[in-house]
Amino acid sequence: MQLGMIGLGRMGANLVRRVMRDGHRCVVYDRDPKAADALVADGATGAGSIKELVAALKAPRAVWVMVPAGQATTAVIDELATTLDSGDIVIDGGNSYYRDDLLHARTLAERGIRLLDCGTSGGVWGLDAGYCLVIGGDADAVARVEPLFVSLAPGVQAAARTPGRDGQAEPCEQGYLHCGPVGAGHFVKMVHNGIEYGMMAALAEGLNVLHNADIGTRTQDGDAETAPLEHPEYYRYDLDVPRIAEVWRRGSVVRSWLLDLTAAALRRSPDLEDFAGRVSDSGEGRWTTIAAIDEGVPAPVLTAALYSRFASRHLDEFADKTLSAMRKQFGGHDEKTSI
Amino acid sequence: MQLGMIGLGRMGANLVRRVMRDGHRCVVYDRDPKAADALVADGATGAGSIKELVAALKAPRAVWVMVPAGQATTAVIDELATTLDSGDIVIDGGNSYYRDDLLHARTLAERGIRLLDCGTSGGVWGLDAGYCLVIGGDADAVARVEPLFVSLAPGVQAAARTPGRDGQAEPCEQGYLHCGPVGAGHFVKMVHNGIEYGMMAALAEGLNVLHNADIGTRTQDGDAETAPLEHPEYYRYDLDVPRIAEVWRRGSVVRSWLLDLTAAALRRSPDLEDFAGRVSDSGEGRWTTIAAIDEGVPAPVLTAALYSRFASRHLDEFADKTLSAMRKQFGGHDEKTSI
Amino acid sequence: MQLGMIGLGRMGANLVRRVMRDGHRCVVYDRDPKAADALVADGATGAGSIKELVAALKAPRAVWVMVPAGQATTAVIDELATTLDSGDIVIDGGNSYYRDDLLHARTLAERGIRLLDCGTSGGVWGLDAGYCLVIGGDADAVARVEPLFVSLAPGVQAAARTPGRDGQAEPCEQGYLHCGPVGAGHFVKMVHNGIEYGMMAALAEGLNVLHNADIGTRTQDGDAETAPLEHPEYYRYDLDVPRIAEVWRRGSVVRSWLLDLTAAALRRSPDLEDFAGRVSDSGEGRWTTIAAIDEGVPAPVLTAALYSRFASRHLDEFADKTLSAMRKQFGGHDEKTSI
Amino acid sequence: MQLGMIGLGRMGANLVRRVMRDGHRCVVYDRDPKAADALVADGATGAGSIKELVAALKAPRAVWVMVPAGQATTAVIDELATTLDSGDIVIDGGNSYYRDDLLHARTLAERGIRLLDCGTSGGVWGLDAGYCLVIGGDADAVARVEPLFVSLAPGVQAAARTPGRDGQAEPCEQGYLHCGPVGAGHFVKMVHNGIEYGMMAALAEGLNVLHNADIGTRTQDGDAETAPLEHPEYYRYDLDVPRIAEVWRRGSVVRSWLLDLTAAALRRSPDLEDFAGRVSDSGEGRWTTIAAIDEGVPAPVLTAALYSRFASRHLDEFADKTLSAMRKQFGGHDEKTSI
Repeated sequence: MQLGMIGLGRMGANLVRRVMRDGHRCVVYDRDPKAADALVADGATGAGSIKELVAALKAPRAVWVMVPAGQATTAVIDELATTLDSGDIVIDGGNSYYRDDLLHARTLAERGIRLLDCGTSGGVWGLDAGYCLVIGGDADAVARVEPLFVSLAPGVQAAARTPGRDGQAEPCEQGYLHCGPVGAGHFVKMVHNGIEYGMMAALAEGLNVLHNADIGTRTQDGDAETAPLEHPEYYRYDLDVPRIAEVWRRGSVVRSWLLDLTAAALRRSPDLEDFAGRVSDSGEGRWTTIAAIDEGVPAPVLTAALYSRFASRHLDEFADKTLSAMRKQFGGHDEKTSI
Repeated sequence: MQLGMIGLGRMGANLVRRVMRDGHRCVVYDRDPKAADALVADGATGAGSIKELVAALKAPRAVWVMVPAGQATTAVIDELATTLDSGDIVIDGGNSYYRDDLLHARTLAERGIRLLDCGTSGGVWGLDAGYCLVIGGDADAVARVEPLFVSLAPGVQAAARTPGRDGQAEPCEQGYLHCGPVGAGHFVKMVHNGIEYGMMAALAEGLNVLHNADIGTRTQDGDAETAPLEHPEYYRYDLDVPRIAEVWRRGSVVRSWLLDLTAAALRRSPDLEDFAGRVSDSGEGRWTTIAAIDEGVPAPVLTAALYSRFASRHLDEFADKTLSAMRKQFGGHDEKTSI
Repeated sequence: MQLGMIGLGRMGANLVRRVMRDGHRCVVYDRDPKAADALVADGATGAGSIKELVAALKAPRAVWVMVPAGQATTAVIDELATTLDSGDIVIDGGNSYYRDDLLHARTLAERGIRLLDCGTSGGVWGLDAGYCLVIGGDADAVARVEPLFVSLAPGVQAAARTPGRDGQAEPCEQGYLHCGPVGAGHFVKMVHNGIEYGMMAALAEGLNVLHNADIGTRTQDGDAETAPLEHPEYYRYDLDVPRIAEVWRRGSVVRSWLLDLTAAALRRSPDLEDFAGRVSDSGEGRWTTIAAIDEGVPAPVLTAALYSRFASRHLDEFADKTLSAMRKQFGGHDEKTSI
Repeated sequence: MQLGMIGLGRMGANLVRRVMRDGHRCVVYDRDPKAADALVADGATGAGSIKELVAALKAPRAVWVMVPAGQATTAVIDELATTLDSGDIVIDGGNSYYRDDLLHARTLAERGIRLLDCGTSGGVWGLDAGYCLVIGGDADAVARVEPLFVSLAPGVQAAARTPGRDGQAEPCEQGYLHCGPVGAGHFVKMVHNGIEYGMMAALAEGLNVLHNADIGTRTQDGDAETAPLEHPEYYRYDLDVPRIAEVWRRGSVVRSWLLDLTAAALRRSPDLEDFAGRVSDSGEGRWTTIAAIDEGVPAPVLTAALYSRFASRHLDEFADKTLSAMRKQFGGHDEKTSI
């Protein structure tokens, strides 16, 4: 079938390439005209504006929006609301906050246009491995563009089938799922990313404990202000973290795609000296925590993972200074200048 | 080669079966004589006591101990110290605390016997999928029993090779690794399990947020004592958690063996009504946190995961009562009897 | 001066009593007519409706709203917007979300009425000890009703003066503070309550560690599924928690009003058997965490305190079941029925 | 009565001064001879060695040890074991790990000497305000040196009496408490400090949220890698944190000695520019967490407070780098060089 793609960054361009492999025809647009050129060379039709893109598609249209969440997505959807026709479908495949989907759907619904929100996972590897897609919106709109989801998803062969599942593979086994009404897709994707933060932090913390397993061989200066290491004899291991990440990839309980990536990164850079350790967060981790709080359910692991990222950017500096100031007040403790 | 196995529970019995598939000959012993029978039927040689087991093996011997960590393991090792000969090797494949390895190694070394500590991961699936093995001890002792590790490990084909790795597969790519001197194996296994706790909790917390995404459709009684749900309209999703776990198995960032298991469990029991939610912990999560504290490195995610297990067993009851008592004192708040 | 009070619960009634002690005259109203009777007996003027209350006050009026946050407060403010006159002042002394203040201020501003948001701390003890007041809104509106704040606040003598402060006591030393524009008062009060949750939890967790210091004298069943207590000899203390709370009240670093209250509660009920341990939360702890997340600053302690309250109400049950289900899957571990 | 004091640092010297105010006679010793001079000028008897100190005291003696925990304390106690006589009493008033008390008590008991472990709280303020003392050891040994505890403790007048307590003030109301057998004193002090860490962090985190309440007025660069601030209009408060700390000192729920100290520190240095924010920890916070883990009770707040101190010293760097490395792998995300 035919697809319009707006936003040709890393993700958008690869989505186009993957659906074209299955014979779907794509009309593509990006603010930066150069972004379209490579795809046009691969067989896509370029458009110089959203208006041109809409004009190049036959109704009822399917237009996928793949631009940064927030104002950029809202601007595109607002323009589509006045450009598309009743019966068309807009798919927001970006990382929009699911609450924004509710507003966007209302804007589009006034013109008879329907919104599907599609959480899209897979990163730079998705072109070949396929994308995991979690979708919100009307069931019949989902059904109409399902061939696209089938092409984008990894397919059932991407993993061994779960015991108890056989016969015809359900969509969820192929790697896409209609989760519920508008917003449900991005809600599920949001929680997915929250879990991702937690898993990443679990690995990172554990590797850090391994990395410091030789602390008993380093000089320790215990004094009244500093906890001495009581048993240095227990911490004399000089461990090969890159090989440990590798060995866990086979047969261990923590084997996972994130571990695969970690092993690959450590293979390239055993001390990770390419990185400074300032870890960004892109919204979903925050929103997942806010959802947990609104629901009144504890999410200590997911939240701790989020806060570690904040701390990696030193946003707790005033808090730390307050602690030092209190210690100075009650105990006359001066800050130590070394660790 | 020849192997003696002491302890024929779920893990010990399957280790024997897997090495026998590669032609190794096993002498087996368990306190419970019936445990050996099935293995004898499969070709192992049964022994009625540790002494008998030792007598049935040709020196230099390799004896694998697979009994519960703590007193049970120490008792077996003490007996082996007086039964084996100089030059023999003991492999502790259980979940011993690595600090105990240091004591056990000293006990054995007095008789010229060497200890290898071997963290063994793989659970009930290891028989067919292979075991991930992380080993501490002398390099030449490791080398001598390496054929056993090769047979037990999953082998390089169990996962795609990491970019940058080609040619002859290193041991770590086959699924076993000599990590360092005595204790290093169990240290690495300990941290592995700490990470496992963190990953499990990340998944569990996320699924719980999904499970409660319909909270806006349930009756809410906001009063001065209770935070009302401000935006019930954002929490009206009745999500199919079993299918969501399934869809994430392909193409998503959180795909992992633990997710595979979760999807399988939810397929069998979509509401998990078979479980009460009292989550045990078997030591390694505690020890990992203690190691982090000794090293002075933060491990908030791993520790939060551990504490959630404690809380699942309601060991925080006195703390909770204290909070209610304070609230009563300062605000005259009576406890609410419902949520 | 003259004050109208709407909402005569525990807090509202005592605020009226405290300002009347200083000679201010009060007109009082509550949905429940009986609530006003006691205050009328103490010298207040009763009103049968908001309209009557407004009519009984001379312009420019000052009306204090002390009703539950959320819909109840919004309803009262909406009615006041159509009943009061330009130049009047509304003081919201409840626990409103500061974001609601912005809406309420706009509603009132359309009629020339100004809103002061006043975070009011002190609980049932405030009548005699005074209330800590943190106020948002226009400086000149604050100045006009300042005599009320002076009467309600504890006064400088309530605590030793901070080193470096002498001469005329600033308002903040008397116990009230104009914090900034509309919303600033409730923002500061919100964070105050967030800190309160953290402090309460710190005390509660610590007392729980003391309460369980005898765990080494209880029977332990270590098995492969359960971490045994390695050193029972370190946990044989049968501590008198009520006396410990009492001794810390004098000279210790943790001396605090919350500790005073805890000691009082433990004096009455040494085992806290009056309480079930279901701890409510009333919004500010949630909002503080959300503010931390929006600001991108870590608040692990405040958030952990909040999550402990959620967990005390067993809202993590599905997460716990998920963990048990995974353990069953990978290790064949059955749930234990006892701790 | 007579007291020997070994260790004349900040704490030891002031303990001597406070007991001398009540007429007790002190013999004092410090490795640094100058430390004794000032106390000799105040009326103490100086000793040039531990042997001299012991010789200058009449049996049965009471010797207070106030030197850094760990090796320094053990060395002094070992020397006292060979210098004192049967029937003498050693009081360890430092911050020893309670597990060390068990060893020290055994060493001393072999010579008929008894150990009291005395957790001593009060910091540089204790000289005038008194010290909070929590004591472990034999009841009759406690009784013999009780006059010293009475002199050191703040006395009942230091706080309002708890409701339900009247008549003769119990020791716990005077500020000292015999908590149980050897180790109980330091166990209780350990948990006290754990709580202290939690309370300090609660205040520090809350003030940091206030400090950043103007984040909506600063330039924000949202992009695909960074969570944008969705509602900058909610974060436009330029709050006066020093005055907020001051106002909470009277009438609020969080009023506490730690808040008093915070207000004093912020009065001196409103932006805390004297501090870098590298926060030390001196052992008790770590040990409290380890106790919680051994007991199997959750202590998320106390542990989070500890980990924040670790993070303030950037010991999580390798973990942070691992996270950045994973993000680079799965999403091609380059690290951002600014926040």
